[in-house]
Parts: sequence; structure tokens; C-alpha cells
Amino acid sequence: MVIVLNSSTTPEQIEKLKQELENYGCSVWPTYGQFQTILGIVGDTGKLDRDYLLSKTYVEKVLSVQEPYKKANRTFHPENTIINIGNQTIGGNQVAIIAGPCSVESREQIVNIAQEVKAAGAGFLRGGAFKPRTSPYSFQGMQQEGLELLKQARAASGLPIVTEIMSIKQLENHHEDIDIIQIGARNMQNFDLLKAAGQINKPILLKRGQSATVEELLMSAEYIMAGGNEKVILCERGIRTFETYTRNTLDLSAVLAIKRLSHLPVIVDPSHAAGLWWMVDSLSKAAVAVGADGLIIEVHQDPSNAKCDGQQSIKPERFTSLMKSLREIARIDNRVL
Amino acid sequence: MVIVLNSSTTPEQIEKLKQELENYGCSVWPTYGQFQTILGIVGDTGKLDRDYLLSKTYVEKVLSVQEPYKKANRTFHPENTIINIGNQTIGGNQVAIIAGPCSVESREQIVNIAQEVKAAGAGFLRGGAFKPRTSPYSFQGMQQEGLELLKQARAASGLPIVTEIMSIKQLENHHEDIDIIQIGARNMQNFDLLKAAGQINKPILLKRGQSATVEELLMSAEYIMAGGNEKVILCERGIRTFETYTRNTLDLSAVLAIKRLSHLPVIVDPSHAAGLWWMVDSLSKAAVAVGADGLIIEVHQDPSNAKCDGQQSIKPERFTSLMKSLREIARIDNRVL
Amino acid sequence: MVIVLNSSTTPEQIEKLKQELENYGCSVWPTYGQFQTILGIVGDTGKLDRDYLLSKTYVEKVLSVQEPYKKANRTFHPENTIINIGNQTIGGNQVAIIAGPCSVESREQIVNIAQEVKAAGAGFLRGGAFKPRTSPYSFQGMQQEGLELLKQARAASGLPIVTEIMSIKQLENHHEDIDIIQIGARNMQNFDLLKAAGQINKPILLKRGQSATVEELLMSAEYIMAGGNEKVILCERGIRTFETYTRNTLDLSAVLAIKRLSHLPVIVDPSHAAGLWWMVDSLSKAAVAVGADGLIIEVHQDPSNAKCDGQQSIKPERFTSLMKSLREIARIDNRVL
Amino acid sequence: MVIVLNSSTTPEQIEKLKQELENYGCSVWPTYGQFQTILGIVGDTGKLDRDYLLSKTYVEKVLSVQEPYKKANRTFHPENTIINIGNQTIGGNQVAIIAGPCSVESREQIVNIAQEVKAAGAGFLRGGAFKPRTSPYSFQGMQQEGLELLKQARAASGLPIVTEIMSIKQLENHHEDIDIIQIGARNMQNFDLLKAAGQINKPILLKRGQSATVEELLMSAEYIMAGGNEKVILCERGIRTFETYTRNTLDLSAVLAIKRLSHLPVIVDPSHAAGLWWMVDSLSKAAVAVGADGLIIEVHQDPSNAKCDGQQSIKPERFTSLMKSLREIARIDNRVL
Repeated sequence: MVIVLNSSTTPEQIEKLKQELENYGCSVWPTYGQFQTILGIVGDTGKLDRDYLLSKTYVEKVLSVQEPYKKANRTFHPENTIINIGNQTIGGNQVAIIAGPCSVESREQIVNIAQEVKAAGAGFLRGGAFKPRTSPYSFQGMQQEGLELLKQARAASGLPIVTEIMSIKQLENHHEDIDIIQIGARNMQNFDLLKAAGQINKPILLKRGQSATVEELLMSAEYIMAGGNEKVILCERGIRTFETYTRNTLDLSAVLAIKRLSHLPVIVDPSHAAGLWWMVDSLSKAAVAVGADGLIIEVHQDPSNAKCDGQQSIKPERFTSLMKSLREIARIDNRVL
Repeated sequence: MVIVLNSSTTPEQIEKLKQELENYGCSVWPTYGQFQTILGIVGDTGKLDRDYLLSKTYVEKVLSVQEPYKKANRTFHPENTIINIGNQTIGGNQVAIIAGPCSVESREQIVNIAQEVKAAGAGFLRGGAFKPRTSPYSFQGMQQEGLELLKQARAASGLPIVTEIMSIKQLENHHEDIDIIQIGARNMQNFDLLKAAGQINKPILLKRGQSATVEELLMSAEYIMAGGNEKVILCERGIRTFETYTRNTLDLSAVLAIKRLSHLPVIVDPSHAAGLWWMVDSLSKAAVAVGADGLIIEVHQDPSNAKCDGQQSIKPERFTSLMKSLREIARIDNRVL
Repeated sequence: MVIVLNSSTTPEQIEKLKQELENYGCSVWPTYGQFQTILGIVGDTGKLDRDYLLSKTYVEKVLSVQEPYKKANRTFHPENTIINIGNQTIGGNQVAIIAGPCSVESREQIVNIAQEVKAAGAGFLRGGAFKPRTSPYSFQGMQQEGLELLKQARAASGLPIVTEIMSIKQLENHHEDIDIIQIGARNMQNFDLLKAAGQINKPILLKRGQSATVEELLMSAEYIMAGGNEKVILCERGIRTFETYTRNTLDLSAVLAIKRLSHLPVIVDPSHAAGLWWMVDSLSKAAVAVGADGLIIEVHQDPSNAKCDGQQSIKPERFTSLMKSLREIARIDNRVL
Repeated sequence: MVIVLNSSTTPEQIEKLKQELENYGCSVWPTYGQFQTILGIVGDTGKLDRDYLLSKTYVEKVLSVQEPYKKANRTFHPENTIINIGNQTIGGNQVAIIAGPCSVESREQIVNIAQEVKAAGAGFLRGGAFKPRTSPYSFQGMQQEGLELLKQARAASGLPIVTEIMSIKQLENHHEDIDIIQIGARNMQNFDLLKAAGQINKPILLKRGQSATVEELLMSAEYIMAGGNEKVILCERGIRTFETYTRNTLDLSAVLAIKRLSHLPVIVDPSHAAGLWWMVDSLSKAAVAVGADGLIIEVHQDPSNAKCDGQQSIKPERFTSLMKSLREIARIDNRVL
């Protein structure tokens, strides 16, 4: 950590601050300039509170040189984390493909899609039972019944299931039924939910909030990991920018940033990022080319009659042909899919 | 609502869509151009699903002409909503001032600040008991004990208390003790929490998410109101932009937009928006000048030793002198403070 | 400046870098941590190139502690700059009001508006002769003829004129006729134009680019000042964000940031920021309350028939009544208007 | 175009507006709802001014259904534009690779890099002679001398040269020497420069401004094309967002949007987007996978001693190995590189 003091700081203030920092177990190395004094701080700076330091009137800036997350940090855990789910893995040499409809609508619908995406090579089935919707008047998902249908689709296809939970109560009631528990973008900083997710022993798919920095995403992962659950899969799903042609702006650089900063696997959701079905193919290919550990793609037999997000879903035939292209791209980096 | 169809749409597709829309109780008026057909739709367009329409391959665009919120909409409720809390009001001719520390730290601290801000003219006491923090390793608030101290400060000062709850469980356990329940920016789209807030009979202070549009904020208010609780106070607290000098960018135009679109009161939080104590005075003055119904300001006796957000808190003396300026500005618009 | 080196940096690399920095006249103070070495650099760090340092593989971060601008920097020029134009000033105790139409349309139009805004108390007349328009098919301004009409309006009203130039050629041909030369948001980083503006002896009104940080705005001012022209007036006119209700998001915190970092005067353009005439009054009041040195406001007799930006222009009567409110707000801070 | 009128609009106002619109050659189809009247307008809506319509007090919204650009619009020019430069093409089946240093530094440097990137398979040489720099105190390029060295590198390697011009004067003086003239992101809305570029007969590489929408980029292309020069190559180079880990956020969805909306070729600049050399490989692969028509990549023999942007340049060996991967990705879509 680096603390920049303004030119009017007295030697007494510097000495007092120095001792305070040393009491936290840090060592302090000052640099004296004409307009500023710079304090270099090393040691266990994790205990220092940036806000507290900034509130001193003679402190001009506090610059962090170390990341504020520990368990999610690649520095302290250099190898990639590989998460095992049934006979599948996420984070290793295999590119994980999660596919399925935005929301579960009927037994027939979800079982059929499960079988179709399995046949095309997907490793996991997605489907929403509890749906976060901007409007209280929109379809809110089939709730518990949807979850039961997902379980039937799992039984029929053999695919592990991925679904979102939106509250601690849903997490408590249903986590045993779900193979990968999704925490959505809107809940990325619902800290009570993150803490609860840290107490269970199931992989968590944590989506990036639409205005969250990479560092904030990793801090939210840290909340889960600090509770004891280290099976966290991160997901880039587009960020909010001024551009309105797409629903959000897919940030593929974030995949590279996350993989450098953290050992956790990171997947990409091209469907929600663009919000446009005809972009899904190309963005999926780009995501595999950039090195993402997997994809989560919306597939629906009849998008025009989907109960939600039809405009961003592709049909099973298109998904099947996309899988072929993705396999070829993965092969270039010696990965399988 | 306006639906734009592409040039290859067949007369049969148009007729089929027209009938479908009419079955929803809408009436459809087509405009035939060379490259596009435009359908003007009037009637109860609230039931139409934008996503569903967009998923049809021949639909090029769907343009909304009416706001998707009803209970929060000024069109259907032209007069300002005024919310009574004890002998105070929010939304009327009086500019409401909520002041107090970021977090409750001790009985002495919170009681003293309550008395100081009361003496300066504040109408409400704020103080955090449950704190949403980016890092799991930061101080998380005094929790239930903090809430008890807030109640003691209320008893000592007579000021109604405003504090944040972060989960449905906290809401259920504590809503009776709180005068205005805050739902923070990070939970603005925690829909299960919003629904729960719709079931209780207490004013809700709903903060704008840092990347939420004005329309999304009003949709979140609609979630609460749709449940039966119409006492919603909105709060502009800065949005996330590319500018990093301030923590967020205070968007005072949003106050004007909200007041035009909705009848709900809207207040401003200059402390969290800027994240810099020396900007709080000037931004508070600007917020009253622009017409906000109130302010929520962080005040602390000893910001350098505050347990959180010290860098954005002002001292009681400064708050007292700020109140004088605010009173003069309010008077220009014939308001009191 | 602070340079953070990664843990694998060798003592030889550190020594070599240290000498290199010392050759630039800087002194280097190292801090040795377990995972990083931090170099505190003081002295003439302005000559050091951040990009150059970052390109070394063992350099992890370069953190600036000093602002990269000199002539615009308040540190080296603590008093406010006051610019004299005719018998008017900008930057002192008087709030400067610049008013007039988006574009000059006819002699009658511009002379009448000049007289009306003068009568209401404006100190300067604005009016566009050369218009930057997003579309090549939109009205591009009356060009040189418009400038002639502006001069006639100046003669008739006695108000100094403010108008935009868009190219070096226009600057060279017309700068003697203009009292304050505006460089628009889109040209804020047109560096060749800034250099040319540095060569003339006329005040420059430099508008913030719609995605420019405060620091970048000050660096563009530095371009002009480095050439010898220190009469720079900065203008906040809204930044581009995700919110689409307003054309841009007015960033009043930027006024405070600029006034802290720089001695240059800063004014606000509420008309272009919001793009909505009914917001102009309230945003103007907020801008004066926050401490801006002036305003630039679009006024038109018949906004519905304006050749550009009619939707953001207010009528002379409204402007007159706004001036009264602004005067009262200015008085609270002991300023005149 | 769709115009939404508010509920208080009188039949006379509607009739008058209708006639006005018909005088512009448009036909008007009204839809009467309870709270709004919607006018569907077809015909030559290009002449209608959105701002003018919005300035009428009874007009609530103006919604565009047609793109405001004509010559750049794929609707009126369905086939891809292919631009021939020497024996190379951009926009066809061959993925165009432009490579070279940020700035020309010496004859030896530029000639060597030209030969190296040519050997690796690049089709064009880039190199800056006139450099737009945020700070007036940074290296501004070798100017005319740099251009001479570029010509020598062209002679030595046979590669056409791509370089930026920053002003009309530079364009006039040097366009004959340059094979592809770059207009940088900061000048994307320097309309006088765009008009000048429309008068010459050379391909223009137009970079997206860092806060420009796809539509604004296409409008700037339209400025050039409206002048008569239809050889425009667009370039996505990252947009400004709240994320600060990368310099800008590469927006690969924009490539897909542009290719759908326009027939013009679009290339990607991963070096400037990320600002981090170690991301260039992966982002280049993603850009080819997403379907970009080409790439512009910074290559330098000794990035640590580059005079600018060393931190985003890759070495020739790395470039050579990247080219191999890119070729394999291009092949999947039956393209060559």
C-alpha cells in the first residue's frame, strides 16, 4: 500500500501515523518529496482500512498495490482450480458447455431440450425456475414446480443441472437438488446471500454484476470462499455501457483479467450479454478463442413462443452446428469440447 | 407501443400478429412504408411482452411509448405523494433532512450525533447497523446491537430512525423497530426483498442501483407498490461512470426526471455519491436547488476514527452551518427546511 | 510517482532502473515487501513516461501521485484565474451568464435575442455560426455569414460574443472577430486545434468531451496554456453514461473537482447536458449553488421553429425569470450575478 | 419515424403537424389511444429534423425506425464493400493484418519491423508519424520525417502503409504518400476533417471514438462518403466504460452490429483497446473468431524502449506465432489470412 501525504503534513503527524501502521504489523518506508511525502507500506496491509486512512485530512491518496482478495487470488494459489461435478469438470482442459432454455415451461419442453443439447455435446443443462424480472408484472418462473421438472430432465438426460436461486430461503430449501447454483448479476453484491452460499457444499456460478469491476466480482467470490465454499465459477455476462444496440457489452478482456488475477474458472454468457440471438454464435466462438473455460447458452425449440428471453435464444439445430465450430476452435489451443 | 416489421414480412404474418395483439385487448393501426411496416398499438399494452415480440424473426424493433410502471406513474396519480412519519413529512413543502453516521459504533456516539443533528434542524436520524461491505474482511456493522442503540438514540432525540436492512430475515425481524427502512443500491433489484417490503406497512427508502436507469428504479418501486406498500421514497446516490475522481457521479437530472415521471418523493445522498467529505456541502446545496425532496447526509464527530466511510462524513459544526445555507436556498422556492 | 515491481525482479534490474530514473533527475526510495518492491520516486517526475515504465516486464504498476498538468495546476498557482473580456470578468465574484440561440438564423433573430438576454442581465451572447452536427445532412450553420450577424448583434447590444470554431482555418480567419472562442466537446482532444489556440491571444472556452475525465480536460487546457495562451475557461456540459433519459448526464461534482485541482474558471452548460428545455431552469440553479463560475444557456424566441436544438432552448421570458432566482442563489454565497 | 403526441394535443395541432409533414413528402398514419396519439410516418423521413419535432411542446417522443445513414447502410447496398489497396484487399475473404510500431522512431527500426511483419504474413505496415498524445509534454511523433521513413519501409518491404493524420493540413500535404489514411478515435467527430477526407481518393481507416455509439460511427463514415469517398474501413478499438483494469473495453459485439447495419469492412485494434501486451494474442484470436475483416496490431522489437505505447506492443516472434493461430481460426470460417 502507498499513502500520499500532502505538503502541509507535520513531522509529528507522520510519526504518529507511522507508529499506528506499525502497530498493525506493517513496516513503513517514507519518501520525502517537495510537494508530497509518500509512505510505502509492506507487511499485512490487508488489515488497513483505506477509508479510514483517507478520512485523515493530511492524507491525499491511498494507492493499493496488492489485491484485497486472498482466497480467490492466483498469487497465493498459482494453479487453476478445477471443479468436479458428476463426471464433468469446469476449469480444466475441457471447455464446459451449459445449455438450455431461459425458463422451464413444461416437462415436455425441458426434457426435450435436455436431450437435444446433450446429443449436441453439452455437458450441463440450464433452466430457470425462479426468474428475476425487471417488472413485477412479468412471468416470474414456475418456481418449485420448475425445479421438479428440471430434476426430471436431469434424470432423463444424465446432465447435471444449473439454475438460479434468488434468496437465502430458496438456497436453504433447494440447494441439495441443484448441481450448480447460480447467483445472478443483480445479486452479485447481495452479501447475505453470498455468505449463505459460503456455508453450503455445492458449486456456485457467480455472475458479474452489470456494473461490477473485475475486482468487485473477485471480492464477491471471496465472500463465498471466506465462508468455506471454494467451488466458485465466475461468469462474464456483459456490462452496462452507453452503447444500446446490444443489451449489454460483452467484456471478453475481463476473462483474461480474471484468469490472470485468480485461479477460479470463468465462463461466458453470450445470450444475456448481447440479448440478440443472431449474435450468440459469433460471440460464443470469440469466447472460446479468448480462452474462457466454458459457455452458458440459451437454447429453445420455439423462441418465438418462449415465456422469456426468446429474442436471445437459439434453436437446437443451430446449437448443434455451433458446437462443431467451437470444437475446432478449442482444438487450436489443445482443448477439448 | 410501436412494432416495426421488416420489409420481408408477409401480409399473412401481419394479419396473424394483428389478431394475436387484438386478442390481448389491444387495437392495432398499421402504417405501410417501402422498407418497413409500422404497427401502432394502443389499449392495454401492459400485457404485451417486449421480449416475446422481439423473438419473432420478422419483428425488427419494439418501441415503447408508455411507461411500464403503473402505481408509481404520475400519469395515473398526478399529485405528489406525501409520506407522514411521526410528526415529519417527506414529499411535501418541507425539505426532509436525514443525518447521522455511516454506522452505529457505540451508545455514546449515536446518541450524541442524534442530539447534534437534531439541534441543527435535521428531521431524521440515519445510522447503519447491518452494513453492506465490498470486502468480507471489513467491519460488517454492529448488527442487532446497533439497532438497539439506534432505538435509544431515537428515544433520546425524538428523531425517527432510518436504517438499512439487507435480507428478508432482517426485514421480518426488525421492521417494527425502524421508522424508514432503507433498501440499498446493491439490493435495488433483489426482487425477493422488494416483494417482502411490499408486504409491510412502513416507508421504504429505495436507493438507485449504481447502474440502474431511472426507469429501472421506478420498476423496483413498482415491485414494492404492487405488493400493497405505496410508501416509497426514492434516493439518487450517484451512478457508476468512467470518471474516477469521485466514487460515483451524482446525477441531479435524475431528480427532475423522477419527479416528472412519478409522484413519489425523491431525496439525494451527496455523501455516498461523491465519497469525498469536502464535496458534501456544495452538492447538498445543488440538490436542494434542483428541487429534491430531501437529503441524507453522513455526519460524524470524528471522521478520522469512523469505522466506515470517514472520508465522506462531515462534522456536526459543518453540518450546522450547511443547514443555514440550505434553508436560504429552500426559501427561494418557497419551501421550508 | 510510485513504481511497483513484481516479486521476481532481480536486484540488478532494480539497480539499473534506479540509475536510469536518477539520470532523469529523480530520487528513488525503495520499499522491500515479500511480494513486491515499491519504488517511491520524487523530483522532476514529469519527464518520466508511464507507458515506457509499464513496458518493462518486471514493472507491475505505475501509480501517479502528482498531476501531469503544470500550468493548469492549482498547486503552482493557488489563486483563481480571473479573465477580463471587455468590461466583464469570468472567474471572479461575478457569476458569468452567457445566453443566446443554438445557431444564428437571421439578423433579426440574433439581434433581438441579444437585446432580450442583455435586458435580463446576461453578460455575453452565444450563437453558433459553424455547427458540429452528427449528420452530414443536418443544417451546418450559416458559417461566415452567421459570424457577421453575430458581430452586428454585438454592436447592437454591447455584449461580447461567444462562438464555436471547428478547425484551424476558421480559427486563423476569424479569431479577431470573436470575444470568446469556443472549442466544442468533440474537439477537446483535437490536439492540432488546441496547439493553434495556444498561439492566439483570446479567451478559449474549452468544453469537456463527453467521455473525458477531469484530468483529460485539464491536460487539454494544458495544451493551450503550454503554447502561451493562459486564458482558458473550462465548461462542464454533461458526460456520456448508460442513462438515456437525458442526452448526457450533467456532472456537477466535476465543477468541484476542477476548482480544487485547477485555478481556471469553470462554467456549466445545462442546455446541452440535459437536452431537455424543462430541465434547464433547475439545473442552472443547481450549477450556481454548487459554485460554478458561470452558465451558458440556450435561449430562443421560438424554440419550435429553431433550426437546431429547439428542444433544449428556453424562451426569453423564462430566461428573465430564471435570472432572478439565480441572483438570489448567488447572493447566499456573497456572489453577484 | 414515429411521433408520440401527449394527451392534451388538440385535433388542430395534429392536423397542422400532419400537413407540415406531408409538405416534406412524407405520409402520416395516426393511431389514437387514450393517453397518446401516435403518428406513423413513412416516405422520405431523412429530411425531418428530430430536434425540431421534439421542440414542439405537444410532442412527447420521436422514435426513429430507420437508420439516419444512407450510403453506409446495408439496406441500400446489400453486398460487402471490398476495398483494393495495391494487391491487397480489405472486406473480402482475406483477413487483413496491419502490423507495426506505435510510432516511427528511426529508419532501421521501421524497415526492420516492416520486414519482420511481412515475413510473418502481415499485409500492411502501420506506424505513427503524427501522434495524438494526451499530454503536450509527451513525444509527438517524428512528423514529416517519420512519414519519409515509412515510405522507405514500404519500398523495402512492399507493404502498403497505414498512418494517422490529425489535421486537414496534414491530409492535404501528405495523402498522396499514404496508402490508408487513419483518422483516430479522438477525431471521429472532427467533422471538418471528415469532410476533407471525403474529397480525396484514398481509403480512410476511421476509428470509433471511445464513447461513440455504433450509429455515430456510421454517421461519421457517412460524412466521408457523402463527400464522394466511399472507401471507408471502420475500426473497433475499445470503448470507455467504468472498468479500469484495461485501458478501454473491447466491444466485439460492435463488429457484428456494424456488419449487420453496414456493408463497410470493419477491423479490430486489440492493442489500443486493452493497452496490455499480454492480452493482444487472445483478443486477436477472439476478433477473428467473431468475424472481423482484419486486425491492426502493434509490434515492436524492443517494447521496453519504445517511445510510446510499449506496454501494449508485442515482439515480432510473438506476432509470428500469433499469425499461425489466427490462420487456423480463419480457416474454420473458410477465410484466408
